[in-house]
Order: sequence, then C-alpha cells, then structure tokens
Amino acid sequence: MKASIIGTTGYGGAELLRILKNHPEFEISSIHSTRDNLAISDEYPHLIGIMNNQLQKIEPEKISESADIVFLATPSGVSGELAAQFVNKNIKIVDLSGDLRLPASEYKQWYKKDPTSDEVINQAVYGLTEWNRDQVKTSDLISNPGCYPTATLLGLAPVVIEQLIEKDQIIVDAKSGISGAGRSLSRTSSFAEANENFSAYKVNQHQHTPEIEQQLKVWNKEMEAITFTTQLLPITRGIMATSYVKLKESYSTKQLVELYEHTYQQSPFVRVRPVGNYPSVKEVAGSNYCDIGLHVDERTGRMTIISVIDNLMKGAAGQAVQNANLMFGMEETTGLEMSPLYP
Amino acid sequence: MKASIIGTTGYGGAELLRILKNHPEFEISSIHSTRDNLAISDEYPHLIGIMNNQLQKIEPEKISESADIVFLATPSGVSGELAAQFVNKNIKIVDLSGDLRLPASEYKQWYKKDPTSDEVINQAVYGLTEWNRDQVKTSDLISNPGCYPTATLLGLAPVVIEQLIEKDQIIVDAKSGISGAGRSLSRTSSFAEANENFSAYKVNQHQHTPEIEQQLKVWNKEMEAITFTTQLLPITRGIMATSYVKLKESYSTKQLVELYEHTYQQSPFVRVRPVGNYPSVKEVAGSNYCDIGLHVDERTGRMTIISVIDNLMKGAAGQAVQNANLMFGMEETTGLEMSPLYP
Amino acid sequence: MKASIIGTTGYGGAELLRILKNHPEFEISSIHSTRDNLAISDEYPHLIGIMNNQLQKIEPEKISESADIVFLATPSGVSGELAAQFVNKNIKIVDLSGDLRLPASEYKQWYKKDPTSDEVINQAVYGLTEWNRDQVKTSDLISNPGCYPTATLLGLAPVVIEQLIEKDQIIVDAKSGISGAGRSLSRTSSFAEANENFSAYKVNQHQHTPEIEQQLKVWNKEMEAITFTTQLLPITRGIMATSYVKLKESYSTKQLVELYEHTYQQSPFVRVRPVGNYPSVKEVAGSNYCDIGLHVDERTGRMTIISVIDNLMKGAAGQAVQNANLMFGMEETTGLEMSPLYP
Amino acid sequence: MKASIIGTTGYGGAELLRILKNHPEFEISSIHSTRDNLAISDEYPHLIGIMNNQLQKIEPEKISESADIVFLATPSGVSGELAAQFVNKNIKIVDLSGDLRLPASEYKQWYKKDPTSDEVINQAVYGLTEWNRDQVKTSDLISNPGCYPTATLLGLAPVVIEQLIEKDQIIVDAKSGISGAGRSLSRTSSFAEANENFSAYKVNQHQHTPEIEQQLKVWNKEMEAITFTTQLLPITRGIMATSYVKLKESYSTKQLVELYEHTYQQSPFVRVRPVGNYPSVKEVAGSNYCDIGLHVDERTGRMTIISVIDNLMKGAAGQAVQNANLMFGMEETTGLEMSPLYP
Repeated sequence: MKASIIGTTGYGGAELLRILKNHPEFEISSIHSTRDNLAISDEYPHLIGIMNNQLQKIEPEKISESADIVFLATPSGVSGELAAQFVNKNIKIVDLSGDLRLPASEYKQWYKKDPTSDEVINQAVYGLTEWNRDQVKTSDLISNPGCYPTATLLGLAPVVIEQLIEKDQIIVDAKSGISGAGRSLSRTSSFAEANENFSAYKVNQHQHTPEIEQQLKVWNKEMEAITFTTQLLPITRGIMATSYVKLKESYSTKQLVELYEHTYQQSPFVRVRPVGNYPSVKEVAGSNYCDIGLHVDERTGRMTIISVIDNLMKGAAGQAVQNANLMFGMEETTGLEMSPLYP
Repeated sequence: MKASIIGTTGYGGAELLRILKNHPEFEISSIHSTRDNLAISDEYPHLIGIMNNQLQKIEPEKISESADIVFLATPSGVSGELAAQFVNKNIKIVDLSGDLRLPASEYKQWYKKDPTSDEVINQAVYGLTEWNRDQVKTSDLISNPGCYPTATLLGLAPVVIEQLIEKDQIIVDAKSGISGAGRSLSRTSSFAEANENFSAYKVNQHQHTPEIEQQLKVWNKEMEAITFTTQLLPITRGIMATSYVKLKESYSTKQLVELYEHTYQQSPFVRVRPVGNYPSVKEVAGSNYCDIGLHVDERTGRMTIISVIDNLMKGAAGQAVQNANLMFGMEETTGLEMSPLYP
Repeated sequence: MKASIIGTTGYGGAELLRILKNHPEFEISSIHSTRDNLAISDEYPHLIGIMNNQLQKIEPEKISESADIVFLATPSGVSGELAAQFVNKNIKIVDLSGDLRLPASEYKQWYKKDPTSDEVINQAVYGLTEWNRDQVKTSDLISNPGCYPTATLLGLAPVVIEQLIEKDQIIVDAKSGISGAGRSLSRTSSFAEANENFSAYKVNQHQHTPEIEQQLKVWNKEMEAITFTTQLLPITRGIMATSYVKLKESYSTKQLVELYEHTYQQSPFVRVRPVGNYPSVKEVAGSNYCDIGLHVDERTGRMTIISVIDNLMKGAAGQAVQNANLMFGMEETTGLEMSPLYP
Repeated sequence: MKASIIGTTGYGGAELLRILKNHPEFEISSIHSTRDNLAISDEYPHLIGIMNNQLQKIEPEKISESADIVFLATPSGVSGELAAQFVNKNIKIVDLSGDLRLPASEYKQWYKKDPTSDEVINQAVYGLTEWNRDQVKTSDLISNPGCYPTATLLGLAPVVIEQLIEKDQIIVDAKSGISGAGRSLSRTSSFAEANENFSAYKVNQHQHTPEIEQQLKVWNKEMEAITFTTQLLPITRGIMATSYVKLKESYSTKQLVELYEHTYQQSPFVRVRPVGNYPSVKEVAGSNYCDIGLHVDERTGRMTIISVIDNLMKGAAGQAVQNANLMFGMEETTGLEMSPLYP
C-alpha cells in the first residue's frame, strides 16, 4: 500500500517516517510540506542514508491518484481544509490534527479558528482504536485522537462505561513532554526556559477538554464537565494523565485492576499494571503502548488512575498507523511492535 | 549567634550552609555528621575555598554549650532522638525532619518507624512561618514543615480558613524534583532511570498526607481526608502542588486572587500571581519564595490552585532559617533575600 | 538460532533484549543473571507483556547445550571467567566486556583486576565490525569493542591507515551519556548530581586507552600513545568522540570527506556527513549508526573529527548483534535497521 | 553608585539584575531595552515583587547624566555603537559584547559584522580581571571578556606566561550550556532538539578564537594559532574548557598544581583543585568562580587543563560586576560572594 504524508517536517510527520520506514505493508510513496524542494534528510539529518526523499508540494489531486492512504500531520486549522479536498476521492485519510474531532461550533469556541464544514467532520470516525475498531475498519476518514485525550480516555473508559463513578467529579491532572507543543519555536519550549522547569498552561482552557468530554458522553450520556489541567514536563516525549474519580460504591484496587484487565484483554497496546505497580512515562517511550496503573484510596472513596503514553506514538503517529492497519484489514499491531527504548 | 548543623552532608544540610554562609547574624560554629573527621569541602567540592570546616561527631551536650541554635538536618527516625537530647538545654532547635510533626501514634502508622516521645513532640511548634509567626517567635523547638505540605498548605490556607470550599473534595496532585528524595542512592533517583521520565510513587500513601490534613483541621476542624498524589519530576529542585477544590458558592478568579493577595500582604515570601498568570518551578529556584496562581473554572465550580517552591529552600533550609530569624527577633527575611536563579 | 544472554539486568543486556525481540533470525532462548528466579519484567516493567521470561542461574554447561550463541553482557572481571567456560563448546560467544580486549598483562595494569588466561584472550577476534568482517565471520569468540573505542576508532581509521597524520599528536576528547557507567548505583550517576552538570573522570587513565592504541598500531605500527579524556554528559545515551589530528600535508576538508566516504561506502552503519555538517548524538539515538563529520583547520594544519554513536547500540548491544549476524552468515544489518529515535 | 543596564531582557542583563539587586554599593537606577514600556517583571515573572522597574528607551545622553556606570548587555553589533555614544561622557562603561575585543579588521572577519571605530576599541581595557586589575582600576571603558575566553585563558595563563609549553600545540575542546546562545529563539536551542543531545558548532570558526589568541600573544608573543572547538551541552548554565598543551620539559602534576596555586593565590575567584581532583560545571553554578584542575600525562608529555565557569557569571555578568567593583575602588568580591547552587 502506498502512503503519502503531508506535514512531514513536524514531529508527528517525522514519527510517521520512522514507523512507516520499517512497516511491512506500507510504502512511503511521497512526502509533502509547505517547504518543498528540500530533501527530508536536510531537514532531519538523522535520516541521512535512511531516506533521501524530496519534500513535494501539497497537491491533493495528484496525491489522491498515486497513493492509497494519506496521513495529514498538518496543524489544526490546516488539516480540515486538506481533508475536505481528499474525501470521496478513493483514498483513505487519517488526520492527526484536532480539526475533525469536534462539531464546528464547539471547534470554533475552543480552537479559536475557523472550522471546516460539518459535512466533512461528520464523515470522520474518531480513531480511539481500542474503542472504535469496527467503525475504523470500514471508514475512509479517521480523526485521530489528541495525545491528552488518548491517555485520559483509555484510563477512564472502564469505570465510565460500567457507571462506577460519580458523573461530576472527574479531575484530570495531565503532563506532557515538550514535543507535544510541536516543532515551531517558542519561548516556553526553548531549552533554557523549559529545562529544570515545570509549568501549567491553558489552565481549564485546553482544547482537548471538549474532546474528552464528548467521548465520555458517548460512553455514558450523563457524564458532566471535567476539570482538566495541562502541564509541561522537561522531557521530550511522554504524557502522564493522573485522573481522580469518585467511586459510587466501595471497591478494592484489586477488583478494579481485574475490571481493567478484563476490559483490555483483547487490546495488545494497553497494559494494565498489577496492584501496587504504576507506570512511568519512560516505560513506554518510543512504543505504541498505553500503560495504566490504579489505586483506590479507602479513606476518600476516590480512585487514582495513572495512564501513560508516548505522545508522538500512541498519542499521534503510532495510533494513526494502528488505525491505518485496521482500515486495510491488517492486524492492528503490524509495524508497531517496537519495544520501549529504556533506559 | 552561633549555629550548629547536624546532618550536614545531606542536601538540606548543604543548603543551610549556602544560606548561613552569607547570613549577617548567624555564624556557622560547627557542623556535624555521622561521617566525621572529614572536611566538608571534601564531601562537597563546590565549597572549596568557601568553607573548610571539619565535620565533627554528633555530641549534643557539647553542641548545647557552644551554640545558640542547632539545625537538625538529619533523616526522619534520627532527628526525633536528637531533638530529645537538646530540649530544655538553653539552645534553640529547628528540626527539618518529619519526626516532630505528627502525634506519636500517627507517626508510627505513616512513617513505619518508632516515634520519639509525645512529650517532645508536643513541645514543638509547627513552623509554617506565614501562619504561625507568633508561636515561632516564642518557641525554642520548631518542627519545620515538610516540602509538600509547605507548598500545599500555603496554597489552600485562604479558602480553607474562609470556609469557601467543600470539606471532602480536596485533591492535591504534587510533583517534586529529585533532590527531595535526599542524597542516599536509589534506582529511582539514578540519572539513567529518572531522566526523561516522570513517575508516581507512594500513591495515596505518602507520609506528608496526615501532616497536611492535621493543619487543615487546625484551620477548619470540619475538613476531611484529602486525596494526595506525589510524583517525581526530572529536575533537581522544585515542587509544584496542583490543588483542586470545590467552591461552595460562585466566585470569580479575580475575587479569589484578591483574597489571596489580601491574606498574604504581610508575607514577603508568598507571591500571589495576577489573574491569568501561573508560576513555574524555575521562577522560584534557589529562593525562599512560594508563588501561587489561581483559576476558577465556571463550568465545574472548581478552583485550580498552583503553588510552587524550591523544595530545598522554602521546603526545607530556607524556611528553617526564616523560622530561626523569628526565634531570635530578627526580620524573617534576614539572609534570605536572594533572587531566584533564572534561567 | 537460539540466543542466550548472561547479565541480562544491566543496560547492555536490556538493549540486547530490545534488539533480539524483533530479530528475524535469533530467538531468545534463555536469559541469565546472578539474580535468578525473577521475571525480567519485574526488573524492567517496560517489558511487561512483551517478555515475561524468568531469569535463570548462570550454568554454562547447560546453556552450551541449548543455545547456538551466548552474549556475555556481564561486567569486566566476570566475563572473562565465563568466556573461558564456553570456549570450544560448540557455542558461539560474543563478550561485551573489556575482558578479552587486551593482553593479560596490560589488562591487569589498566583494569586493576585479574585477567583471564591469555589462551582464551588470544582466541578472541576484536569485533570492530567494519574493519574485521572476515575474521568475525569465521570466529566463534568475539571480543566486542568498548563504546569509546568504537566511536574513536571509526573516526580515526581512514587517516591512520592512509598514514596522513603525525604519529604522536592524536588527542581524543570523548564524552559519554550516563548509561555508559552501567546500572550500579553511584554518586556520580545520581540524578541530582549528574543533572545540569558535566565532569571529567579518569583523566588520562581510562581503561579504553590501550584498547584504542592497540588497534591504531594494528593499522599503522608507528602510532604512538594518544591523549584521551573521558567526560560525563547529562544525557542517558550517546557518545561523541572529538578527535584532533595533525595532518602531515595539506588537505582540504572536501578531500578528506571523500576519503572517508570511499572508505566506508560498503559499511551501512557508518554515515559520513557532507562538508560543513556535523553529527549530534541524538541523531543516532536508539540506532546502530556511527556518524562522522570532519573539518580541516588551515590555520593549524589540524583536522577535527567528530564521531557519534549510541553507546548502548553501536557501542555495545547493537555491534554485538552486528557481529553475531556475520558469525551466522547473515547480512550485518539484520534486525538492526531501526531509525534513530528523533526527537 | 547608580548603575544603568542596557539590554536588560537578555540572559546577561537578567543576571546583572540578580547580582546588582543585592549589591551593597550599586543601585539599579534604570533599565533599558529596545522593548520599552514594559515592566521587567512582565518579561521575567521570577522578578515579581523583587523588582518592578519599567524598561525604558535607550537614550545615551539621558543615561549619562543620571548614572555612574552603564552595563551594555546588548548583542555584538549593537554594543559597539552604543559604547561610542557613552565614551568621554563622565560615565563608566562595561561592555559585555564582543564589539570592543578585537581590532576592527579582525572583528569584521570573525563576526561578519561592521565594527565600531578603532578609536573606541583602542580605549577599551580587556577586563580579564585576574590579569588586568591595574588597568581596569583606572579605565572608564571595559571590554568584558567572552565566556569561552574567560574559562580558557584562566586555564592557560600560568603555563603560557612561564613559557612551559610548545607554541603551536594548544587544543581547546570547549563545551557550553545553552544559555550561552542567548535568549533569541532557534532550532538548536529548542528543548526537544537540544535535550538529550550534544553537538558541535562553528567548528574551527568560532569568533572567540582570535580573542583567545590575542591574549595568549600578549602573554607570550611567540604563541601561534590554537585549535578551538565549541560544543553545546544540554544544560542551562556552565562552560568547561578542556585544554591540551604539550610541555616543553617534564613536570609532575604536583609541580604544576603548585605553579597554578601560586599564580592565583591573590585571586579569590580562581580555585585551583588539588592533584587528582577535577572541577565539574555544577560546582560553580550561580557563582563567580573559575575552578581549574590539571593532569600531566607522562606517556605523552601533554597536560590536560580543565577549567569551568558559570557562563552567565564569571563568563558575563559576574565578571562585569567584578570589573565594575575595581573601577570604583572596591574589593573585587563585593556583592559577588554567593556560593554555588549545589545540587
């Protein structure tokens, strides 16, 4: 299968290159960027000798004719427009941006950008693979989940679906490595200011909030607004979502670990940790895993859920390929079985 | 005034040396360690040419005779015993460990160690300076607060005291730099495993939990158990406590920022950030400040409180000296006016 | 082919697991450690669900009977003894330690440990793959090069072999990430002391010095002692060797880049950078590449050679597998084609 | 004494604020930037409550009338022009840029910028304090040394002056923390690319090369061109210069350590380490020290010199204040006695 990548010079694009280069079924047929006429190895010297493809102009018509699938690794605000040009063109599409995740009106409110048409948005299947496999398999347009929502939702799903928690007491304290901010330059992501530092941003205003809430309501329509905080870790890759939920009744940690194990037993990329064991972000670095650890505090009746992913893998390019695998009828693990890089 | 330090080779001890070296009123009269007969500059080469004192044996009798104040920078489980040997000996004592912070029975439960006698514990004044100035001034035995409790309590105090929040919905997601784990070697604090990593530990079981709850109840006896999570940041210094509280009634961020500003207007080391501005840990590094930022989420009726300190300064040695200053009738800022080291 | 690993809990062992797990020809048949009766995923939680093998006792006799190859990822001082028990036993051996790299007398002088017998040492082929392919292919006992020597020697080889440089003016300023120090705990490799730091160690006394000099003399018997400095970088993985050589005659950077390109054109893991382009350690992280950049300073007649590797890959486990591939008649790149993890 | 700072928003400017805030003799009378009408604490929130001065326009005439000394923390290419407007105006000047360090012609060649007039350049005294105290004391215009030259020259001075080394065999392998690149944004100094990385830049072409060579020739006019490499450490602050020199005759490390101790015995900020002890960059962080360690390799007749500084302190703002102290007849240590921030 031939795959094209648009937005190749960003970190999500670069991670797609890393995965697809060794994928047994996909072949990178073309790479695209607003900065064309440049070899990708000039932009990313770590690719010298591995991949010397030239970046090409973004011409949807031409790409549709030559590729079987296109990955949109372009920023929010750009992807939606591109997706609209690819739909119904005999090419499958996976969009890594936030442009197809929310209804147009809500998008506008949280992203402060013009949305693409609801028509396109409505065609898109939300690619949280573990929970939407059947729809993903038959869709041609996938809206790949955000990095924070992926970690958060995989951690919350079992207790939300089983209706074990109070509907208005979910608090998510999320932390991300700096690659999550993308490759454009900013003061906050400059080394001297981010290093030896830890800071909160967009407090209660992050655009991933409605994406999480929307999916929670899909699972249980009574769920209410969540409290969601995002913070910047002085590391390159990795997200931890520490979620706090109030249990309606009393359960032991063991019981809930068993529920999670049961829920995810057919999901090769979700690893539920045994009682007393909590995942750290480095334990999934470079891999497509989402690891989850739990603890019930009997003193308060709350459960702490710790879920970690590599934001560029399960939080972006990895899950995008996981979805693409399913779209073409392959095993979802195809080309994604790399172990975490530890230490 | 002559100051002795016991437990000088740990990070808290080293930070006391840094502060006291330039303090206009205290003079370091002797330094002590179980590893005596060693120059401190052999242990800490950054002190070569600054301080060449020899480490001496820990002889409380002798120290009481020659010093006006002793700082116990010894570990929990050791400090209590030492404190007992110094009380009622015409020497002032500041204990940086957890040994004098909890009633004996509760100490045993959370620290899993033998407590010192309740008699000594009861003599100790809890040195959260901003809230206990009067008692500190007249006390000879200070139990210096833990690093996490300092950040957390300064952040929660105004709304707890004013009874603005629900008594059973406090969640504190706390993160600490690795120096907080002390200087003894461990896998978790080895570079290759802590670097590019972020991990939770002692989930719902950290020994600082009862210390926080005890003080909350001092302020408002109805307060109930909190949810408290501790996590390890890949930085050397710094703590952020992100606290979530449920407001009983509706307030704007602005109203609560004004409450905090008012509350701390006589507290030179607490800096309340203006609306929309959140502190990062690097902005207090090397200084004795505790910076606090707030945000009310109207969607959920919860407030997010972000408070940061340098765990070795306001979270340990800095606050210890702040208390010592008051014990001798000085301005609390004496010798503590260093600006944060930024970047 | 069945592979056993001894010394699996160290970083070199863990990296062998990462590689061999996805290797198309080798199967991990058993893993061994002095700490047996433990699942490897208990020691390394990042392997949960990937590999749940139990660590077993180190029984050479038994291993020889069941495996086709054994990797000794044991420390210097241990490996030599083990190697002696495996030789001439119908099993191939790759030793990652320093025990088989030097004649016994020199080993004793630099390693301050008892050497294994010269008889075993003499059987071993020095596995600097790019320069010893033919010998590696026919050997059953490989002494895998040190991490510093690999980076240094690949950088120096072309000009030493072509006799373009002065024999007594080689200076190598080398820097390594902290995983190079192994997994045992030490003050120098604790996070709080290594982080935001950079330090030199074993100045002019590093045990890799004679290993480098020995190979230089193989290439050109007139070469004399080198100046070699080792320094600790606050990163987990990566080595840069910055080498300074004095050219006998005047050459342009371009001429020497061409010499290097020519020399390594059949070496898929050595990437010579174009004029003006210098490799950084992150550009090879997680991969088996050695990247080399050059610059001739016309003002001084010296050339600066910058060579980088991932110390756990090309500097240890990666090169070990590269050698193992050749020992079994495979392509040297088999199972080693992962791209660098960037960023 | 009243001090004005121009270029206050850069890291050198911010470090001047940190020092001067607590300086007993200088008072910050005004701060200036091309970005005026902004409170410095808006730009640097760590200064909230410490310093709320407004940034003002850069008006040399006005500044000259109100201040006793002006610090130019402006970039190379800007400082020279400013200095020209301040000379002969009854105000003392310390320029932290490279604009006054080289003759105009050489400046143009290495900095690729237009030089200021040789007339101004010639008035400037090179402020390598330890070696130019007498001139500094009587000068009104100081050209503050570069960060790399400070570390390098203090390390080389004794053996160059005593003529103990070969004139054409000095190699300096220098490494700097990222704050050395200044505060403007760039790919190389973005966190995701600099973190877990180490890279060389401007190989053999760094503009500090002629500055070092010029001073070496002042000490010994026979000295020839040096080999000088600059590399980027993934830390915020700190420089290590590892220098290699060829001894003309045989000396022990001990003899040379004694020479260095003797040379610097009147220099409170230079700490010569005992035999076998090498400084690390963290051991001077936040302080004005330059620490030096030495080792003679008898095998090669070369000495390795390791010198470290904090690039923002002894490499910029600290040395600037050290010079300013002397210009006003104070002790050079005034206001600079802060201990290193360790760990």
